[in-house]
Amino acid sequence: MCQSSVFMIDKDGEKEIKRDVILVEPTDDGVKIQGFFESPEVIPARIKTIDLLKHRIILEPLNVENK
Amino acid sequence: MCQSSVFMIDKDGEKEIKRDVILVEPTDDGVKIQGFFESPEVIPARIKTIDLLKHRIILEPLNVENK
Repeated sequence: MCQSSVFMIDKDGEKEIKRDVILVEPTDDGVKIQGFFESPEVIPARIKTIDLLKHRIILEPLNVENK
Repeated sequence: MCQSSVFMIDKDGEKEIKRDVILVEPTDDGVKIQGFFESPEVIPARIKTIDLLKHRIILEPLNVENK
């Protein structure tokens, strides 16, 4: 198995918000994240990067436009 | 390490388009995918599901609206 941790970008850098994530799915309201043996939850964010080598999924808040 | 395979949804189901993917990143033009020891390429698609248990990343073509 190969769970990853989910990080959210904020003004101070990246903050880990969930470990042992098994499923990630973009939705209309954000990103649905499911942990091991947990119910899925929707985070108001979008996927920025999925780094499968480091097992890191980086999200950024939906209200930040930083392109 | 924990590479995944990337699948594209088409009318016949799911088709594997890349193995040993180490990085996935949404962009304005689609989804940037980088394989192991390969240059990244951009696929005109969006992320549908990332299944970290099965090591599968499912994309759907950008021109399909099936909500």
